[in-house]
Amino acid sequence: MTASAAPLDLIRPGVDRSLREFVDRQRPFFTDPHLASLLSAAEDFLAGGKRLRPAFCYWGWRAAGGGDEPAMHTAAASLELLQASALIHDDVMDASDVRRGMPSAHRRFERMHAEAGWHGSAEQFGEGAAVLLGNLLLVWSGEMWRTSGLPPEAIATAQPVHDHMLTELMCGQYLDLLEQAQGQSTFDSALRVALFKSGKYSVEQPLRLGLVLAARAQHHWIDRLCVQYGQQVGIAFQLRDDILGVFGDPAETGKPAGDDLREGKRTILIARTLAEASPAQAETVRSLLGDPRLDAEGVERLRAAIEDSGARAACEEMIKRYLDNALRALEQAPIDETARTALASLAVAATSRRT
Amino acid sequence: MTASAAPLDLIRPGVDRSLREFVDRQRPFFTDPHLASLLSAAEDFLAGGKRLRPAFCYWGWRAAGGGDEPAMHTAAASLELLQASALIHDDVMDASDVRRGMPSAHRRFERMHAEAGWHGSAEQFGEGAAVLLGNLLLVWSGEMWRTSGLPPEAIATAQPVHDHMLTELMCGQYLDLLEQAQGQSTFDSALRVALFKSGKYSVEQPLRLGLVLAARAQHHWIDRLCVQYGQQVGIAFQLRDDILGVFGDPAETGKPAGDDLREGKRTILIARTLAEASPAQAETVRSLLGDPRLDAEGVERLRAAIEDSGARAACEEMIKRYLDNALRALEQAPIDETARTALASLAVAATSRRT
Repeated sequence: MTASAAPLDLIRPGVDRSLREFVDRQRPFFTDPHLASLLSAAEDFLAGGKRLRPAFCYWGWRAAGGGDEPAMHTAAASLELLQASALIHDDVMDASDVRRGMPSAHRRFERMHAEAGWHGSAEQFGEGAAVLLGNLLLVWSGEMWRTSGLPPEAIATAQPVHDHMLTELMCGQYLDLLEQAQGQSTFDSALRVALFKSGKYSVEQPLRLGLVLAARAQHHWIDRLCVQYGQQVGIAFQLRDDILGVFGDPAETGKPAGDDLREGKRTILIARTLAEASPAQAETVRSLLGDPRLDAEGVERLRAAIEDSGARAACEEMIKRYLDNALRALEQAPIDETARTALASLAVAATSRRT
Repeated sequence: MTASAAPLDLIRPGVDRSLREFVDRQRPFFTDPHLASLLSAAEDFLAGGKRLRPAFCYWGWRAAGGGDEPAMHTAAASLELLQASALIHDDVMDASDVRRGMPSAHRRFERMHAEAGWHGSAEQFGEGAAVLLGNLLLVWSGEMWRTSGLPPEAIATAQPVHDHMLTELMCGQYLDLLEQAQGQSTFDSALRVALFKSGKYSVEQPLRLGLVLAARAQHHWIDRLCVQYGQQVGIAFQLRDDILGVFGDPAETGKPAGDDLREGKRTILIARTLAEASPAQAETVRSLLGDPRLDAEGVERLRAAIEDSGARAACEEMIKRYLDNALRALEQAPIDETARTALASLAVAATSRRT
């Protein structure tokens, strides 16, 4: 971690503790021994994660004048439950085997079925159990958010933002599914999906939640900061994700090298490659991208095409530009100074991360 | 519909209208033309359904002194969104092709993919889209419940019941998955799963929500009525489901004949059959139950084994006994007389239904 990760480090203990306390409150409902495997899967999954969304939410709250209160750690931590739910369902939809260096949730349940020698398809059992685990974390996220201990007026003011975020998340993921299926992503359509799916949900809306919770209102300056800082950091965050998905070190990302390429993900990076590629480079992408049996040599050939087309450098340039825009907007916002510094560091951490 | 369905008929217009109004409120978020297919799938799915859970919730409210208020129709209708979400996810998990006489949600999306000739697996697309549709309806259910227009104090008092219901629903479905996979269901374990998965969620908790909303407290008599009437009707409801799943008329149930048998569902009816069967009957069940290629003759042989073992009659007897217990408990509860009559009719309708 670089020095810029400090705003993340600062809230991690509070977020981790809130998550443990919430799960402990649920434990009495899991007395049936058959439910132990569901609860332990939830706990193991929640132990990982960068806590990035809680950090944007918490520092939004501080930015609008909120204090360092345990209730806010809890409200912010609820976003980590939502993110866990989304990742578990994502992995089912993408048939991904690995998450954070461990078997994905559906593979974990599949293995449990296979090792016990149960009836029926282990794969189908794994998928079903993972869908239910994701559902459980989704409903817990809403419960944790509402029972954080923040004043009811604060929650009531921010609830429409929260509701909208959830609808937007599901719609964004649906748009992403469509984009992958239609397979004709242009640069513009890839950007639109990235904004809808990841930009808004990863940065803008968590930030907005924190700001509205503390301000008890949806001020004009809040909206401006959420769009000009939040959306810009969100898209840069997604661009970093695209680059890590192709060029990242598996030891750091916790995902096998080239997984995004094998899966054929239609990212901004790929759209840019196709827009810039020579005929030979375009042919390499067309013939190899999305091949589930892609080997190390194929991964290298695709990486070379992306690099040599100039797309990787162009995406790095975009990240830099979005980050600059975001930091400029941050400078102009009427917010707490400690939070301003923290949000600047967070923007850098979110867009220069290696995991 | 029999005369006893009147309490259902009475609330259906209000529930239907509330659902339409809620979806209309969401429509502005669906301006992207790519999202039209998601919204129309939600609308088509919500057009069907017996509205049984909203009815138990509404009549619970009336039982504890609540009036016939539009806000209560809305709060009750939110349970129909939850049920739609659960059914859509259930159909993905069970790989069911048909729901309410129409293609299940994942098959609908799968067909959309195939007809458009998109990239990748149509089946995987269908499952992913259905998981997201289920998630969308799940988060909408929470939003509709909270924004019904009922007094905030009423919602706040009932919220822990609502939260508990959601956790219980996901846990119950997980127990059901395990039970099917372990395939060693005894009569007791099948009864436990039926209570957890369906009994509580279909009758007891909707009823409790309505009672607590109106009473603004969790009185001892509410708990007694929920257990002695709610759980008993809930299990009888599930037993009726078991019988319809094997002997029901496809024209009425909207599901292909013998689907539960092909799927190998471990129901109370099956557990009872195995407990009572002659060696020859048990052999029929063991060899045919869960065979995905089971033909009409195989279905008939299984039906005969279940009938001849006496299990069907025993389940009918159980339904009658549970219903009698429920009606007796209802007689003794300190509730509104109109609601008492309605809840008695509802109990009969829920356990003698043919669809």
